[in-house]
Amino acid sequence: MNPILNASFALWLQAMPDATQGQTTLLTVLAISAVGMLVAGYLARGVLNKDTGTPEMRRISDAIKSGAEAYMNRQNKTIAALAILLALVIYFAYLFGKDDARLAVRMTISFLFGAVCSLAAGFSGMWVSIRANIRVAAAARSSLGEAMQIALRGGAVTGVAVTALSLFGVGLLFAFFDGVNNPRDVPGQIVAFGFGASFVALFAQLGGGIYTKAADVGADLVGKVEAGIPEDDPRNPAVIADLVGDNVGDCAGRGADIFESSAAENIGAMILGVTLYKVFGLSGVLFPLYAGALGLLASIIGVFSVRLKGDEDPMKALNRGFYIASFIAVGGFYIAVQQLLGGNLWLFGAGVIGIVTSFLFVFLTQYYTDHNYRPVRFIAESCTTGPATTIISGLAIGMECTGLVVVTITAAIFGSYWMGVQAALPGVSALASGLYGTAIATMGVLSTAAYILAMDTFGPITDNAGGIAEMSRQPAEVRHRTDLLDAAGNTTKALTKGYAIGSAALAAFLLFSAYIDDVKLVLAAKLNKPFEEIPFSVDIGQVPVFIGALLGAMLVFLFSSLAIQAVGKVAQTVIQEVRRQFRENPDIMLGQADPSYSQCVDIVTAGALKAMILPGSLPVLAPVLVGLVFKNLPPAEDGTPMGACGVAAMLMVGTITGILMATFMNNGGGAWDNAKKYIELGSHGGKGSEAHKASVVGDTVGDPFKDTAGPSIHVLIKLLSTITLVAAPLFL
Amino acid sequence: MNPILNASFALWLQAMPDATQGQTTLLTVLAISAVGMLVAGYLARGVLNKDTGTPEMRRISDAIKSGAEAYMNRQNKTIAALAILLALVIYFAYLFGKDDARLAVRMTISFLFGAVCSLAAGFSGMWVSIRANIRVAAAARSSLGEAMQIALRGGAVTGVAVTALSLFGVGLLFAFFDGVNNPRDVPGQIVAFGFGASFVALFAQLGGGIYTKAADVGADLVGKVEAGIPEDDPRNPAVIADLVGDNVGDCAGRGADIFESSAAENIGAMILGVTLYKVFGLSGVLFPLYAGALGLLASIIGVFSVRLKGDEDPMKALNRGFYIASFIAVGGFYIAVQQLLGGNLWLFGAGVIGIVTSFLFVFLTQYYTDHNYRPVRFIAESCTTGPATTIISGLAIGMECTGLVVVTITAAIFGSYWMGVQAALPGVSALASGLYGTAIATMGVLSTAAYILAMDTFGPITDNAGGIAEMSRQPAEVRHRTDLLDAAGNTTKALTKGYAIGSAALAAFLLFSAYIDDVKLVLAAKLNKPFEEIPFSVDIGQVPVFIGALLGAMLVFLFSSLAIQAVGKVAQTVIQEVRRQFRENPDIMLGQADPSYSQCVDIVTAGALKAMILPGSLPVLAPVLVGLVFKNLPPAEDGTPMGACGVAAMLMVGTITGILMATFMNNGGGAWDNAKKYIELGSHGGKGSEAHKASVVGDTVGDPFKDTAGPSIHVLIKLLSTITLVAAPLFL
Repeated sequence: MNPILNASFALWLQAMPDATQGQTTLLTVLAISAVGMLVAGYLARGVLNKDTGTPEMRRISDAIKSGAEAYMNRQNKTIAALAILLALVIYFAYLFGKDDARLAVRMTISFLFGAVCSLAAGFSGMWVSIRANIRVAAAARSSLGEAMQIALRGGAVTGVAVTALSLFGVGLLFAFFDGVNNPRDVPGQIVAFGFGASFVALFAQLGGGIYTKAADVGADLVGKVEAGIPEDDPRNPAVIADLVGDNVGDCAGRGADIFESSAAENIGAMILGVTLYKVFGLSGVLFPLYAGALGLLASIIGVFSVRLKGDEDPMKALNRGFYIASFIAVGGFYIAVQQLLGGNLWLFGAGVIGIVTSFLFVFLTQYYTDHNYRPVRFIAESCTTGPATTIISGLAIGMECTGLVVVTITAAIFGSYWMGVQAALPGVSALASGLYGTAIATMGVLSTAAYILAMDTFGPITDNAGGIAEMSRQPAEVRHRTDLLDAAGNTTKALTKGYAIGSAALAAFLLFSAYIDDVKLVLAAKLNKPFEEIPFSVDIGQVPVFIGALLGAMLVFLFSSLAIQAVGKVAQTVIQEVRRQFRENPDIMLGQADPSYSQCVDIVTAGALKAMILPGSLPVLAPVLVGLVFKNLPPAEDGTPMGACGVAAMLMVGTITGILMATFMNNGGGAWDNAKKYIELGSHGGKGSEAHKASVVGDTVGDPFKDTAGPSIHVLIKLLSTITLVAAPLFL
Repeated sequence: MNPILNASFALWLQAMPDATQGQTTLLTVLAISAVGMLVAGYLARGVLNKDTGTPEMRRISDAIKSGAEAYMNRQNKTIAALAILLALVIYFAYLFGKDDARLAVRMTISFLFGAVCSLAAGFSGMWVSIRANIRVAAAARSSLGEAMQIALRGGAVTGVAVTALSLFGVGLLFAFFDGVNNPRDVPGQIVAFGFGASFVALFAQLGGGIYTKAADVGADLVGKVEAGIPEDDPRNPAVIADLVGDNVGDCAGRGADIFESSAAENIGAMILGVTLYKVFGLSGVLFPLYAGALGLLASIIGVFSVRLKGDEDPMKALNRGFYIASFIAVGGFYIAVQQLLGGNLWLFGAGVIGIVTSFLFVFLTQYYTDHNYRPVRFIAESCTTGPATTIISGLAIGMECTGLVVVTITAAIFGSYWMGVQAALPGVSALASGLYGTAIATMGVLSTAAYILAMDTFGPITDNAGGIAEMSRQPAEVRHRTDLLDAAGNTTKALTKGYAIGSAALAAFLLFSAYIDDVKLVLAAKLNKPFEEIPFSVDIGQVPVFIGALLGAMLVFLFSSLAIQAVGKVAQTVIQEVRRQFRENPDIMLGQADPSYSQCVDIVTAGALKAMILPGSLPVLAPVLVGLVFKNLPPAEDGTPMGACGVAAMLMVGTITGILMATFMNNGGGAWDNAKKYIELGSHGGKGSEAHKASVVGDTVGDPFKDTAGPSIHVLIKLLSTITLVAAPLFL
């Protein structure tokens, strides 16, 4: 590089003096996230301007759209009611429990704002993808490259909007509460934003997950088995509910999920930044937002760079975009560390560990769920000896894969912790310094979240596009193009699940460090002692702490059970509704009258939203109950209060169990799914063979694992973190 | 009570002066356990003197006997080789690692003695039950009451011998190492006895569990599916292996399991007694052995009290015996507390909590696995919609049942801890006092272990007796009698699994308290500081500790996966061996030549013992590896050494995950099994219906859950505890 340019670049990097830097950084974050939302709007307009194909296509797409909207209306009503109820609880708990009217107002505002943003994130994901699917199908009539670009950009609307909204929301609240002048208090006041987001996400993911699988099972059982009509037959009133399910579970649920992930993790990292205030000042608090904003820019550039070259596999083009986004994100990280963290290269290294870890997770997921490798082949082979061995081998593979996943998580946490310790931040303990390293690694994982989410939403869009092309009987070459896209979409969906686990695992540690710091900050203010002198060790050798840990692990098992059982219950309501329509209007079966798709959708929705209340309430109530009961126990010998400590143990061991169970369920389910596809490609007798029948059983068992319970556990982990952060002062 | 009698009773209770009390107590324990072994011998002679029935019965029984002996020879060789290898490692590790030749010799002796006793316990269980089965079948020709008594007394040989041997072994080592004069050091030196016992038990349970399920699956697949011969056809060379499997998995495995449980828990409680030395002196250290000895007497009385009244359900008579044993055990507890613990009624209360908890566990297991209640009915109903819904509902029920089980464990730990705190032992912290309460609750659970084990072994004996009656074509009334016994045996087997979980869960807390105390004792000696000033908190908020916890949870998942996969692998070797015999000697299929049962048994054994090496090594190596690696990390801020602390976290969270996974697998498997039986009794279409076919799939999936992985996890939990106790000094 030219020496003069080099020098002025270095000057720019360190240009801002410490006093005004905070203001500038915050404004930059808000500006970049505003730009992000504009870009999302631009992408959406681009997608909407595309051709909507034939009337036949529109008919099917409209049915999906009206179904999805029926779901959204219903879901938003239920969740909004629950959120308002909880907001009141939070307000009064803080008002009377803590006797602090200002804090009560701020907590309530944060919570509601987080909830509204999360609803918006889920809604936008859904809104665009149900409009993008038909345009992808239409474009596939002429060009694969064009179709792929529409699908990716449709997905990117969600990815960019959600990530930008998360940064914008947190940044805005920080500014609104005058965080620049009270940087040590405000992060603790906006934790409720993360909780609001997680709360909505939990119900969205649970509801969506229950919805999609209940519709699937219900439509199959009553249509194929009872009425004897083929799969995806338009006479089946539940068939649209089934198609809607993909959007509901994958788009809306995942959008809310990633929104709360990024919000919760940013807030957690900001709280950690508070404890390092004397080292980095305001910069340390704002660093997570700034790094996230630069990552958002990197992701946007990545999205715009994707172009299909000739006849290549769409996956290749998507991966190229991911590499570009990651590469730019590394650069952005370097700049952020230079500008805000004094150019400490060890901290930069921790961020790089995070980015590398996200690659490793993607690879591991691929190994365990792709039919080119041992695990799926092993399951496929066991299908030849019947459904029992199919199930046994799938369960065994699901459990096995936790091994490498945990080793990777362990290495990432350890490595970034070590980098943090090496950073040797002046005036803080090696522990705090190391923790900041793991926090930065988490930010590294999250830096390309927008791109990952774009790839993820690419999945259901191409899935639906394939369905539309199929049902509107497009010529073979068009369907070949949508099949290619659909295959790529399946891969991206699996990979992003691995990414989601990785980010959840790393963030988990960050979030409960934030919880402990939060507790210590509250105690420090209460006891009027310096932060460093506050005792707080989560010693599971203590009886109450051990009990908290045991209950935390149990919570995950019970939650999974309730989520899985909910699928079965709602499937029953679907069956009854379809039977009712067939009975009351015999014209439907004759093909002379359209069934009421939206009524069926509404019933599944009502059922799903009702069935999700029990599993959804469990992680909300359990930690609060433990905290309020254990609060009355005498403190530990070192003075650690048992209320906050029992909850910490519940949170940590619940998180550990959650990471394992989610990995088990996601990968087990994915492996069964692909074992079926592998057999359908012609192995072990192909479609219709006994092995294929056994593989269908495996796939059906795997469905609620990978699409209901597994993804819901991701959110459960975050919810546990954020609710404990919000409720922490009540446990003291 | 007569006032004079009352006074002299009170005098007797406090008769022994403190000086000679230890000697007397120890001698009493040794005497009672010697009496126990004599009683076992007497019971065995009584059983062996019974009639062995018809020649046809003897032919089948001999085949089972020769198969079981082939297994025992092979298993003992493999385990002995592994144990000797490990003994050398222990010797040299202590010799060079700790530079203490005396300790090295004592540890090695303890380990080998524990291993030998455990092998003997497994062997005796097997030896008697393969001889009792035919005598039960023979007696069933004339009297149900007589048959039941033989079966129970055959089971009691194992129960009494194993429990007595455990007390005798620990007591003898304590005397041999002059524990009466060094009560503070010796418990730490005999921990290796528990480790030796657990080590053997792990391999025995894993090997047995893999064996029985591999033989079952292998025999079915090659016999019924390939050769087209009926189940249990004598021409199938694997059919005896299948029958042997019941003895191998249930008798030998469970015998070694209960042996190590009682040994490990007694030693753990003794170490806890050491920390209370200044309160109770030697008495506190010997209390667990003394309470156990009185419990053994109670169990023996219970066994002898069982008599069938007329035509009543055998289960009623068995339960009556259990109530009598429990009632006497409560009395024994009262006496032990009076004599050794100064008559502290709070501590007696903690013991009663333990006994009540064991009842609760039995009831919970019944609720989740008996077809009279919701869970099994729910699974049975889901069988009507095919194998996929059968599996899903079974998995959901298995996960659900962890809820009530954990709540019960929590209540028991909390209650007994509270009782311990109320006991307000002078001069020790509330924490230590509370822990001793939970320790005593564990002893309460274990006090009727001999009777429970007798009921447990009753299961495979009656199972085999039924098989012999069936295969020797006894008249219907005889088979009806053995069916009644078999049904009772199924119930007792399920109930004792619940008991085993309960005892493992309570003991877990005791065992890692013992670990922490052990570490602190070693550190106290090393740093020459008083015990109370040694810092040791297992703070999972610390990065290395959290990583230890994460690895511990993963260990259980990976172990389960390997255990389940091993079943599949060995089943393949069975299939190949049976094919080979059919091919090389066509006379077998014509019924003109006997197949080589023992060769088939030997091959399954070899396969099972080979397949168990990997899962068996995992829990042995993992904690040592973590300890040796983490040892090099800097200590926590409070001075806690990271090696011992990381291992503690691994142990604790591994235990928590283990309790949950074992409960999930045992009860899920049991519920599937009984859903099948419920359908076979005529519900949902009965035998041969589609629902029945689906229920068979559920049962097959449940088999490796409840008979291989689940019970092995019980042992894994104890092994983790004992290996960490043994290796603790190496982590410092």
